Amino acid sequence: MHNLNSTTQTHAGACNARLATEKVLTGDRPTGSLHLGHFVGSLKQRVLLQQQYQQTILVADMQGLTDNGFKPTLVAANILNLVADYLAVGIEPSKTTICLQSALPALAELTMYYSNLVTVARLERNPTVKNEIANKAFGQSVPAGFLTYPISQAADITGFMGTLVPVGDDQLPMIEQTNEIVRKVNHIAGQTILVECKPLLSQTPRLVAPDGKNKMSKSMGNCIYLGSDPLAIRKAVQSMYTDPNHLNISDPGRIEGNVVFSYLDAFHPEPDTVAKLKIHYRQGGLGDGQVKKQLEECLQQLLAPIRAKRELYLSDKQQLLDILKAGTELAQQETEIVVKQVKNVFGLSLF
Amino acid sequence: MHNLNSTTQTHAGACNARLATEKVLTGDRPTGSLHLGHFVGSLKQRVLLQQQYQQTILVADMQGLTDNGFKPTLVAANILNLVADYLAVGIEPSKTTICLQSALPALAELTMYYSNLVTVARLERNPTVKNEIANKAFGQSVPAGFLTYPISQAADITGFMGTLVPVGDDQLPMIEQTNEIVRKVNHIAGQTILVECKPLLSQTPRLVAPDGKNKMSKSMGNCIYLGSDPLAIRKAVQSMYTDPNHLNISDPGRIEGNVVFSYLDAFHPEPDTVAKLKIHYRQGGLGDGQVKKQLEECLQQLLAPIRAKRELYLSDKQQLLDILKAGTELAQQETEIVVKQVKNVFGLSLF
Repeated sequence: MHNLNSTTQTHAGACNARLATEKVLTGDRPTGSLHLGHFVGSLKQRVLLQQQYQQTILVADMQGLTDNGFKPTLVAANILNLVADYLAVGIEPSKTTICLQSALPALAELTMYYSNLVTVARLERNPTVKNEIANKAFGQSVPAGFLTYPISQAADITGFMGTLVPVGDDQLPMIEQTNEIVRKVNHIAGQTILVECKPLLSQTPRLVAPDGKNKMSKSMGNCIYLGSDPLAIRKAVQSMYTDPNHLNISDPGRIEGNVVFSYLDAFHPEPDTVAKLKIHYRQGGLGDGQVKKQLEECLQQLLAPIRAKRELYLSDKQQLLDILKAGTELAQQETEIVVKQVKNVFGLSLF
Repeated sequence: MHNLNSTTQTHAGACNARLATEKVLTGDRPTGSLHLGHFVGSLKQRVLLQQQYQQTILVADMQGLTDNGFKPTLVAANILNLVADYLAVGIEPSKTTICLQSALPALAELTMYYSNLVTVARLERNPTVKNEIANKAFGQSVPAGFLTYPISQAADITGFMGTLVPVGDDQLPMIEQTNEIVRKVNHIAGQTILVECKPLLSQTPRLVAPDGKNKMSKSMGNCIYLGSDPLAIRKAVQSMYTDPNHLNISDPGRIEGNVVFSYLDAFHPEPDTVAKLKIHYRQGGLGDGQVKKQLEECLQQLLAPIRAKRELYLSDKQQLLDILKAGTELAQQETEIVVKQVKNVFGLSLF
């Protein structure tokens, strides 16, 4: 996963005038199905962004391999699932270019050129990579491709001349690394060849997992997926962490740290209703079961049409392939232009 | 420079039967003109190898950038010089594929895939890279592309299904790294996709520089180049280190460490004449000037036609470009096949 969240509707709307010429670049690693965390964190916004800007979504299968090199089937198996997830939530191929990283050799070429402009020490200092290396418990076995993936990500962003990159704040160092490379290339060229990009910071808090402890994460196995069936949704809601001191319905309950309410905030279509529920819960007299019932209804309603569309798309793999191929062909043209310009900077455009 | 020396004629001849199906892969970084060290160390052998085997020579411009990222004109300016050097010594484009690394995106793609199979720790242990990093005085600023260039070299070798790689013994760790990657890819595939390569170890000692202290090296600036003019050749021979205790012509002289004699061994067409000169020099009565005169004659004779051909080729840059382009197109076809097979191993051959 590129871990790229995007802004709230409000933020994107407010920036509309300023960003009219921006090019949005975002993407996901196909290492699992997308879940509700992605939905609020990025997918909803991508659906809005495609109305206003040129947007490219990269299915980052090469990046997926950086920590799955020895178990590549995980990545391959999730590519078309990811495309189905996109289409199911309303990403429109006529508005958004959905493309496959491994079918874009220009991105690999850019990565090679940029690798000579970034020191090993700089990569080792990258806070995002440092954290991820610690979390993944690679020990002494960090794959070279993992340490260097910020360079590959810079290739992804600049390969599309991306100017606006939806990210969570934990991903800001990636933007910084990209812009360092952009400035170095422009310095060597003695003119502006590549453009710096700006982060489009997520305004929504990261969705916690039902247990209330972790962020919702594909790798943690505690997710409600876009394709989760009604029973799985019910079970996940039932298991959600609430207020452990709210033992009797008549007791006053706490909202803070209460996962059910944070999901209601994120997913209930009527903020007023949620506000009233909160008041009632705080006063006492509103049981967890009641609140969970409201949340479940709302999630079932949200996910039923998405799941249905997703299944429909997945029933026609050839169509998914065709969509991905068409987007990739467009992306090939775009990225080839950029790699030619960068090769030119290094004097390597002989023929 | 790939630093790939090749065997003596005898060795290559002796191995002829065994190696009949071998594919030779070799190359140079275009970071300077080729010199006499290359001539005895690799070029002569390539001229022979092309008679017996499929041979590919890679103009490794991308690798040249790994330590010249910020001064790329050095690399770009030397590409056609290198091709002219090859042609001048007798490499025939009809027998040897001469191709340009930067125009082969498949090699960049392979590098990306292999990067996930090699740990950072493994790269840091590579003795060749360790030495080179020490020699180049990068300090804390080793470019990522430099640390990872053994992976790129593995991509070069396997991208052409190279089975026989002419190297000096200092380059053996590169072969080892390549074969580790080959075995990992085959292990993931569950079958033989890539073939291991064998080093073709140089049997000739490395040519020392005229000062007798260093190896002849493009980066040291103490070379006799293939294109050196007669005066430069004369000066280099005149300045050669001999026997510092051989003060009078009548004194007995030492052959060991005497640069003039090591050059006579390497370049004089008649070993018997050299043997007689050695006896005479050891006995006393043979002046350094006389021996140098013999060497100079022999080098002038060797280099005059090479220099002339080189100048002729360099006078028609378009022809050089056409030759390089034709070879590169062939190489594109070859390497595309390999990258498709490797992508297939990772399940990424969707379209």
